[in-house]
Amino acid sequence: MKLTKLLKRLRIDNPERFRLADFDPADDHGLNWKGAPAKADLAANQELLAGLQKRLYADGHWAVLIVLQGMDTAGKDGIISHVMSGVNPQGCEVRAFKAPSEEELAHDFLWRSSLRLPARGRIGIFNRSHYEEVLVVRVHPDLLDRQKIPKKLRGGKEFWKERFSDVRAFERHLARNGTVILKFFLHISKEEQRKRLLARLEEPDKRWKFSTQDVVERALWNKYMAAYEEMIQATSRPEAPWYVIPADHKPLARLAVSAALVEALQGLDLHYPKIAGEALDELRKVDAELRGAESRAPGRKRAKKR
Amino acid sequence: MKLTKLLKRLRIDNPERFRLADFDPADDHGLNWKGAPAKADLAANQELLAGLQKRLYADGHWAVLIVLQGMDTAGKDGIISHVMSGVNPQGCEVRAFKAPSEEELAHDFLWRSSLRLPARGRIGIFNRSHYEEVLVVRVHPDLLDRQKIPKKLRGGKEFWKERFSDVRAFERHLARNGTVILKFFLHISKEEQRKRLLARLEEPDKRWKFSTQDVVERALWNKYMAAYEEMIQATSRPEAPWYVIPADHKPLARLAVSAALVEALQGLDLHYPKIAGEALDELRKVDAELRGAESRAPGRKRAKKR
Repeated sequence: MKLTKLLKRLRIDNPERFRLADFDPADDHGLNWKGAPAKADLAANQELLAGLQKRLYADGHWAVLIVLQGMDTAGKDGIISHVMSGVNPQGCEVRAFKAPSEEELAHDFLWRSSLRLPARGRIGIFNRSHYEEVLVVRVHPDLLDRQKIPKKLRGGKEFWKERFSDVRAFERHLARNGTVILKFFLHISKEEQRKRLLARLEEPDKRWKFSTQDVVERALWNKYMAAYEEMIQATSRPEAPWYVIPADHKPLARLAVSAALVEALQGLDLHYPKIAGEALDELRKVDAELRGAESRAPGRKRAKKR
Repeated sequence: MKLTKLLKRLRIDNPERFRLADFDPADDHGLNWKGAPAKADLAANQELLAGLQKRLYADGHWAVLIVLQGMDTAGKDGIISHVMSGVNPQGCEVRAFKAPSEEELAHDFLWRSSLRLPARGRIGIFNRSHYEEVLVVRVHPDLLDRQKIPKKLRGGKEFWKERFSDVRAFERHLARNGTVILKFFLHISKEEQRKRLLARLEEPDKRWKFSTQDVVERALWNKYMAAYEEMIQATSRPEAPWYVIPADHKPLARLAVSAALVEALQGLDLHYPKIAGEALDELRKVDAELRGAESRAPGRKRAKKR
């Protein structure tokens, strides 16, 4: 199966018909993702991305926002390191969203995402994001108390629908102003998470990543899956689509995400700014001056040039 | 005419029927705004505002965002100093929006407003605001070039409608999350502006405020008025209403704005946090400890207490 065809299958173009149960976290979609060929594909995509990012930066009109969501151990950090490693960090910013600060809680729930948005020419990666507001906050609604939203604004049964509507409007606005948005749900199975948590406990160089909180959230697996499903139904839109990435096989997940990025960036028709007319004349003048300056430079022996 | 009745008249509750021509900048609405009684009203409102702001701060759930727009010399700075002077600056932040920086231009047009939003418990005053994006940018569309919005996103004739829609969504989201939004268009006549610009030229302590750019914009008066009219039609909503303030008479404008603020804050039902149960027991314990500590304090003579 070709990657472009796979991407179309993973992108949620008909969100109202989306059911998470239709997506198997271990499905390899008939793709030979093991071994050398897949590794070569990923390496090729890394190289493409590095080049595309340079042009994105020079072009300076578009920003790219990548949202990564998934349960603990789903592979968010691995995606960032394996997919983005070829890209110049000067044009690529990773923002991790942990528990919000007091100052963040004192603002609307999109505020801290707004602050971290990538500028034109940049790729911004949200490792978790404003979507935590309809995931962890939804599974633990007592977190709303900490957000200090006035009581009279919290009663309505429309509350979560309004959050979805606000998120859609936020992303629509960004898209209209030149931000390309790609959202990835790294979809792992509960059994695969069990194995990965065990690995964190057992392998010394993974142990630092283990948190007992992960086990608390794991016990709420079904609630989380319901929240993810509704989130994707409500917020996958043409200008900011969700991709449901089968994430039980890490190499396959990385390949799929890198392919989606390459596809999106290639669709932008990015150009290095062209210099022509007066500006070019000016550059030629400066060029001539710089050449002249060298030959007149004090302390530099003319003989050296011969 | 009572102030509450006046406010209702100035607040644009039916934006689709709004016509700027129906509002006379010199209309005093039968209000005796000259002399001592009006000054007393303004002073009373200042005192009310100072008290309401303390409660807003202690309550900590609501934020208040005040947007001031108007042509040059319309009295924005005067409103801030005369209406807000009684308020503790710790709970009140004024943000002036001048020409955007390079970093601001590299983001969507609401970004710099997002950054300056007041936190819960605070009053934020925008001296000019994101509305410049549908005013000065609309009158000078070449400013869009500096914003580096990709060309293919700028062609549509829906462009300004989309900006209005994005602004509405932004403010709706803020309102849903606890920000009370009040927007004031300080409406002066072209003749009154002429007088005030002359005063700036002639009075030494006003001269620093004069900018030749003001005269450039003045020549585009009708275009600005058309932009204001459409802006108010498109963005006055129950959760973020526009007030069209007759601003040819400064005392009247100040009185009207202060009355609108008092009305909005009084509608919030603000409370000092109540302390009861265990927390109160804890406070009583600390109280007792502090009293005990004084009597045991080293270097303090017990005799002094008698």
